Amino acid sequence: MLVKMRRDATPEEIRAVEDKVHALGFATGKMVGEEITLVGVYGDITRLPVGEIEEMAGVETLIPISRAYKRAAQKGPPERPIYQTVEIGKVVCGAEDLVFIAGPCSVESEAQIMEAARLVKEAGADALRGGVVKYRSSPYSGWEGLGASDTESLRKGLALIVKAGREFGLPTVVEILDPADVPVYEDAGVDCFQIGEPNSKNQALLNRLRTTKLPVIHKRGNSLDAEAYLLWVERILSGGKENVILCERGIASQNRYTRNTLDCGSIAAFRYQLSGLPIAVDASHATGIRDLVHPATLAGIVAGASVVLVEAHPNPLIAKSDGFQGLFPEQLRALVGAARETWALRKRLDRGYLPSAAIEKAYLARAEADKTRFFRH
Amino acid sequence: MLVKMRRDATPEEIRAVEDKVHALGFATGKMVGEEITLVGVYGDITRLPVGEIEEMAGVETLIPISRAYKRAAQKGPPERPIYQTVEIGKVVCGAEDLVFIAGPCSVESEAQIMEAARLVKEAGADALRGGVVKYRSSPYSGWEGLGASDTESLRKGLALIVKAGREFGLPTVVEILDPADVPVYEDAGVDCFQIGEPNSKNQALLNRLRTTKLPVIHKRGNSLDAEAYLLWVERILSGGKENVILCERGIASQNRYTRNTLDCGSIAAFRYQLSGLPIAVDASHATGIRDLVHPATLAGIVAGASVVLVEAHPNPLIAKSDGFQGLFPEQLRALVGAARETWALRKRLDRGYLPSAAIEKAYLARAEADKTRFFRH
Amino acid sequence: MLVKMRRDATPEEIRAVEDKVHALGFATGKMVGEEITLVGVYGDITRLPVGEIEEMAGVETLIPISRAYKRAAQKGPPERPIYQTVEIGKVVCGAEDLVFIAGPCSVESEAQIMEAARLVKEAGADALRGGVVKYRSSPYSGWEGLGASDTESLRKGLALIVKAGREFGLPTVVEILDPADVPVYEDAGVDCFQIGEPNSKNQALLNRLRTTKLPVIHKRGNSLDAEAYLLWVERILSGGKENVILCERGIASQNRYTRNTLDCGSIAAFRYQLSGLPIAVDASHATGIRDLVHPATLAGIVAGASVVLVEAHPNPLIAKSDGFQGLFPEQLRALVGAARETWALRKRLDRGYLPSAAIEKAYLARAEADKTRFFRH
Amino acid sequence: MLVKMRRDATPEEIRAVEDKVHALGFATGKMVGEEITLVGVYGDITRLPVGEIEEMAGVETLIPISRAYKRAAQKGPPERPIYQTVEIGKVVCGAEDLVFIAGPCSVESEAQIMEAARLVKEAGADALRGGVVKYRSSPYSGWEGLGASDTESLRKGLALIVKAGREFGLPTVVEILDPADVPVYEDAGVDCFQIGEPNSKNQALLNRLRTTKLPVIHKRGNSLDAEAYLLWVERILSGGKENVILCERGIASQNRYTRNTLDCGSIAAFRYQLSGLPIAVDASHATGIRDLVHPATLAGIVAGASVVLVEAHPNPLIAKSDGFQGLFPEQLRALVGAARETWALRKRLDRGYLPSAAIEKAYLARAEADKTRFFRH
Repeated sequence: MLVKMRRDATPEEIRAVEDKVHALGFATGKMVGEEITLVGVYGDITRLPVGEIEEMAGVETLIPISRAYKRAAQKGPPERPIYQTVEIGKVVCGAEDLVFIAGPCSVESEAQIMEAARLVKEAGADALRGGVVKYRSSPYSGWEGLGASDTESLRKGLALIVKAGREFGLPTVVEILDPADVPVYEDAGVDCFQIGEPNSKNQALLNRLRTTKLPVIHKRGNSLDAEAYLLWVERILSGGKENVILCERGIASQNRYTRNTLDCGSIAAFRYQLSGLPIAVDASHATGIRDLVHPATLAGIVAGASVVLVEAHPNPLIAKSDGFQGLFPEQLRALVGAARETWALRKRLDRGYLPSAAIEKAYLARAEADKTRFFRH
Repeated sequence: MLVKMRRDATPEEIRAVEDKVHALGFATGKMVGEEITLVGVYGDITRLPVGEIEEMAGVETLIPISRAYKRAAQKGPPERPIYQTVEIGKVVCGAEDLVFIAGPCSVESEAQIMEAARLVKEAGADALRGGVVKYRSSPYSGWEGLGASDTESLRKGLALIVKAGREFGLPTVVEILDPADVPVYEDAGVDCFQIGEPNSKNQALLNRLRTTKLPVIHKRGNSLDAEAYLLWVERILSGGKENVILCERGIASQNRYTRNTLDCGSIAAFRYQLSGLPIAVDASHATGIRDLVHPATLAGIVAGASVVLVEAHPNPLIAKSDGFQGLFPEQLRALVGAARETWALRKRLDRGYLPSAAIEKAYLARAEADKTRFFRH
Repeated sequence: MLVKMRRDATPEEIRAVEDKVHALGFATGKMVGEEITLVGVYGDITRLPVGEIEEMAGVETLIPISRAYKRAAQKGPPERPIYQTVEIGKVVCGAEDLVFIAGPCSVESEAQIMEAARLVKEAGADALRGGVVKYRSSPYSGWEGLGASDTESLRKGLALIVKAGREFGLPTVVEILDPADVPVYEDAGVDCFQIGEPNSKNQALLNRLRTTKLPVIHKRGNSLDAEAYLLWVERILSGGKENVILCERGIASQNRYTRNTLDCGSIAAFRYQLSGLPIAVDASHATGIRDLVHPATLAGIVAGASVVLVEAHPNPLIAKSDGFQGLFPEQLRALVGAARETWALRKRLDRGYLPSAAIEKAYLARAEADKTRFFRH
Repeated sequence: MLVKMRRDATPEEIRAVEDKVHALGFATGKMVGEEITLVGVYGDITRLPVGEIEEMAGVETLIPISRAYKRAAQKGPPERPIYQTVEIGKVVCGAEDLVFIAGPCSVESEAQIMEAARLVKEAGADALRGGVVKYRSSPYSGWEGLGASDTESLRKGLALIVKAGREFGLPTVVEILDPADVPVYEDAGVDCFQIGEPNSKNQALLNRLRTTKLPVIHKRGNSLDAEAYLLWVERILSGGKENVILCERGIASQNRYTRNTLDCGSIAAFRYQLSGLPIAVDASHATGIRDLVHPATLAGIVAGASVVLVEAHPNPLIAKSDGFQGLFPEQLRALVGAARETWALRKRLDRGYLPSAAIEKAYLARAEADKTRFFRH
C-alpha cells in the first residue's frame, strides 16, 4: 500500500504517518517527488486500518500496489502472451486451424443425434456438441434432457452422443453441471467438458475439474469483467491443469435486442493482451437470434477467437430446446465455410498486426522535435 | 391493448370486462381460443385505466399491441432492409467500398492537422476527422480545443481542418456540440457533422440538424438499447432528412478492461434486421486501448459496418487529447490495409449469407416426418 | 401467438395468413379492429415458422401472448401478493418483526465464532451467519474456510457455528456450495441454507435443495433481471417447497464506485408486485464498502425487505476474508437499532401505501370532464 | 507514474529502467521494499511511452498515482464532506428540512398547471416542477410541450408555470434543453433549472449554466459511474458556481422490470463519502412504474437524499406525457406525508451513524491480542 500525501503536506505530517505505520508494526519506504511524497507500507496490508490513516493530516489517498494473484492463464510478459494449444480428442485448438464445434442444444434421441452428427460432419465442422442434462430457464418447461433423471439416464444419454461422435469421427463436447458426475462423463468417453454460463462461478464444479485429464471449455459468466473472468478460470488452472479453453458467449447489458451482448473487445483483449489460452466464440447464446449467429461468429474470429461453438439441429423447428437460435443445416454449412475463409484472412492479417511496443521508440525520439514543429511556430 | 383472460375465466367475467371497457368509451373485439380468450380494446389506449382492468375477476394480464413509431431508419420489410447510401463530400458510404475516416482527436495547430491529413491520405484512408471544440471528461484538463473560446476561434479552427482536407483531397468530419454553431460549420466548408456520444440524446442539437443538408454521423449513446438508439436517430430523420450514418462506439457495461463494450451483435442487427442506413464502427472509443483498435475495427467490419472511424495522430505521444488511444502512423497504415482486405472478404461472404426466411419452408414441410423419425421409434 | 397485420393489409392477405397457418396444423382466431386485424394462432407455438410468416404480404409483426411458467413465487393476483412467512429455527421471517442476520464472512476458529455469536446476540440480532467453506475470488488467496479440505473438515467447521448459535440462542445460516454436501449440513444442525451469488444459477444445487426441509436464502445472481431471478427461484419451489427467502445483494453495472449496485427498485417490485416471499437485503456485498452498509441496509428495509443480512466480525481488521466490508461490533449495534426503528416506521407507513387500483376509478369517471377543463377552453 | 518491478528483478534491471526514464527526460524516485521495488516517474506522464517501459526486463506493471482533477463537488476531506445548502427561491435544500418537488411531466394548459400547483401545495410539497419543452422518446409522439415551437411559445409556456407557482407560493423547477434559451428562462422568473438525463453530458449546456445565478438540478446520466458523474457536475461548478443539486434518477442495467435501476448505494456514497452537495432522488424516472414511486422515494431518502422529485398530475389518466408514471393526487399526498416522516427518522438516526474512522483505533490496538485469542490456541 502507498500513502499518497497531499501536495501541501508538511514534513511533520509525513513523519507522523511514518511513525503511525511503524507503530502498527509495518515497515515503510518513502519516495519524495517534486510535488508529491509517497510513503510505502510493507507487510500484510489487509490488516491496515485504512480509514484511520486516510484521515491523518496531510494524507490525500491510499493506493494499492499488489495484485493478489499470478496468472496461470497467461504465460510470458503482458504484451506477448505465449499461446498454448488444447487438444479435444485429436482436434487441436489454438494451433494452425480454426476449430469448429457444432451440434444441437440437447441430445433428444439416438436418431436425432446421429443425424446431427452426420450434418455436422458434412458441413465440415470438427467436433460435436450436445447437452445430455439440459436444465431450462423455466423449471416448468418439462424437457430437461435425456440424462436429467438419474445417473443411469445420464450414462445412457452420454453413450448416445459418444456413439454419434465416433461414428462420424467427431470428438464430443458435453456440458457438465454437477461435480459428482465428472467420472460418469469420463467413463462414457466424452472428449471435452463444457461449463455453461450459469455455472461459470460454481466453485465446487471448478475445483472438481482441476483433476480431470479432459479439456474444459469454461464459458464466461455474463456479469464478469474480462479480468475477473480470468480469475475464475484460474480456479481450474491453479492446480497445474493446462488444457482449458476460454469462451465468450455474451455479457448482460442494457442492450435488449440481442439476448446478451457479444464482447468482441474482450476477445481481442484475451488474445492480444491477457491470455495465451485458446478462445472460443459462442454467438448462438450471445445473440440468441438465429440469423445473427453468422455475422457475429465471424466477428468473433476476426477479433481473436480460434474456436467456434454454435448450435445447429437437423430441423430446429422441432427442437426440444433453444430451437429459435439453432442453425438450419444449410446455415451451418454456409457458416463453416465462411468461418474458415475468415480464419484464413485473420491468420494472414495477424502477421501485419503492429503493437505499440514495436514502434514507440521512434516517436519518443522525435517527441521534442514534433512539439516544436506542431506547437511552437 | 389486449386483455388476456385467465384460462378459468367464466363467460360472465369476460362479459364484465367488455361492458366495463365499453362504458369507458372504447370499442372492443374478441378472440376466443381453445384455452384463452382475448378482448381487444381500440382507441386512445393511453387513457385506459390499466390497473382497474387488471384487477377485474378473470383477467390475467394486459398486452400492448402497437408501436408508437414508424421507422424512417428502415425501409422495406423487417427482414429485408433497403440499403441506402450517404455521401460525405465525394465519398459514398454504404456502397461498394469501405469508407475509412481517420484523424486526430483534436485539431491542435495548422502544422499538426496538415501533417495528420498527409498521413491519413498516405495511409490510404478516405476522409479526415478532427475536433475543433474538444471538451474533456475533466473540466480542469485545460486544453478544450482551438475553437472552444468563442465563435471567432471556432471559425479559425474549422478553417484549419477544412484547408487540410482540401489540400489532400479528403472530405472532413467534425464534431458539433452546440445547435447555435451549425451555420458556422456549414459556412466553414465542413463536409460532415459528427454527434459525439455525450450528445447522442441532445434533443435541441438533433432537432437543429434536421435541416442541414450535410450528412450526420450520429454516435450511439452508451446506455442505449439498439432499438432505443434508432428512435433517437429518428429524431433527425423525422423531418425527411436521409443522409445519416449510424455509429457503434461501445456501450457502458460491467466490463472494465476496455473503456466501453463494442457491441458487434448490434452492428449485425442494424445491418441485417433493423436499418438500411450505413453503419460506422469506432473502435478507438469502444476499446480505449490503442493496441485493441485494430482487431476490434476488423470485427466491426465483419459484423456489418461499412464505415470506419479511428483516431490517429502524427505522434500520439505528444497529442493534446486522447493520446493513449490514437494510432501511430504505421498502425494506421496497417489497419487501413487490413480493413480493406477484410471488407473485400465480407462483401464476398455476404453473398452466401442465408437468412432463415429463405429455407424455413422446407423444414416446416418435413416437421411431422422429422418428429416421427426422431421421437417416435 | 398473434399475427398483427399492417393497417393497409388487404382481406386477401389476411386470408392467406389464415390459410398458411391452418396448413401448418394450427387453429386460428381473428379480431378485426378499426385499424388493425389480429390473427391468433393456437397450439404448440414453439414449432411456428416465425420468419416465414413475418415475411408474408400484409404482416406487420408477431406478438407472443403466453408466458411459459406459472409463479410459485407469487400467490394471489399480481396486484395483491399473498405474503408468506419462512421460519429459520424459531425466528419467523416475513411476519411482524424484522429479522436481522449477522456474522463473520467465515468461521475462522471456535474462539472467533463464539465471540462473533456473543456480539451478534448482544447487538440485538436474531440469527448467526458464517461460511465454513469460503472460496475466494482468487484461488491463490490461500484461506478457503475451515471446511474446504474434505467432508470431515466440513463437519467440524459446521459443528463450530452450530455450537456457537445454540450457546447464544441464535439459529444459524450457512452457505452451501456442493449438492453432495446437503445432508452434511442437515446432520450438523444448521438452521438455514444460503445460496451465494456465484451459485445463484447452479441448477444441480437448486434441484437438490428442492427436497430439504430447511429454509433456503437464495441470493439473486448479479446479472439477473428481477423476473428472470424469480424463475431461478422457481427451480427450488417447483417441487412444492415453500420456505425460500429472496435476497437482493447488488447487481453488476457500469457503476464502479460500489462493488455492486443495490437494486432497491427491484426490492420494491418483489414486495409490492411480484412475490409473496420474504425479501432479504445484503448491503455488505451490494456496496462492498463498510461505511455504506448502514445507509444501504436501511434503504433496503424501506424499499420492502423484511430480513437483513450483514457481515460483522469481532475485529474485522484481522478477519481472514472480506475484512474490508465487515462491520465493527459498535457499527453492528448501531445498525441493528437503526434497522428496527426503520422497520417500525415502514410498518406504520405501509398502511398508508396507496396502489393505483384503489383510486383509478374516480379519475376515470372524471376523465372526460377533466379533458374539457384542461384542454378545451 | 510508478514502475512496479517484479519480485525477481535484478538491480541491473532496475537501473536500466531508471536510465531509460532519465533518458526520456523524466525525473525518478525509488522505493525499495522487502519484496518489491517501485521506481517513481515524475513530470508530464501523458508523454510516457508506456508500452516500451512495460516490456523492459524485470518490469511487472505501471501504476498511475495522480488524479487529474480536484473536486469542487466536495469540500473537506473525503471522510467528512462539508455539506452545503442550495436555495430554490426561498426553499433551502440540504438543510434542516426535506424539500419535496412535484408536478406534472409537462405544462399542458393554464388550467392544468394551476390545478397541478394547487394539488402540489395542498399535498404539502415545497416546489413545483413541469416541463415546457418536452421532447419525447419517439419524435412521432406529436405533443412536445407548449414551448417547443419557438421562443415566443417557450416564453408563454414558462409564464404559465411561473404564474401557477407564484399563485400558490411554490418556487418553480423547469428543464432546460438548449443553451440559447437560458436567458429566456431567467427572464420568465423560473426559480431553478433542471438538466434532464439525456442532456447530462451536454457540454455546451453545462458550460452555459456556469454563469447563471439560478440553482441547477443536474440529473445523473444513466450510463455514468458515481465518480464519473461528479466530474460532469464539476463542469458547471468549475467556474465558481456553487448552487448545484445532484440527482439520482436510475441507471441503465440488465434489469428490465423497472425502467432504470435506482442506485441507492451511490446516493449513500454521494452523501457519506463523495460530495457535500444536496442530493435529489427521482423515483418516477428510476422506476417508471407509478406504484413503485412511493417505496423507492422513501428508500432514496433513507440512503441520503434530502430532495425529492416526483411526477404528479391532477388526472394522470389524461396526461399528455408520461401519464403511466405520474402519481394520482391522493398518492402524492400520501407520499409527501410518508417522506416527511421518513426524513424525520433519517435525521434522528443519522446522529447514530458511526464511520469506521471513529473506532478503528481501538481495534487496531487489540489486533495482536485478538489474533492470539482467535488463531493461536
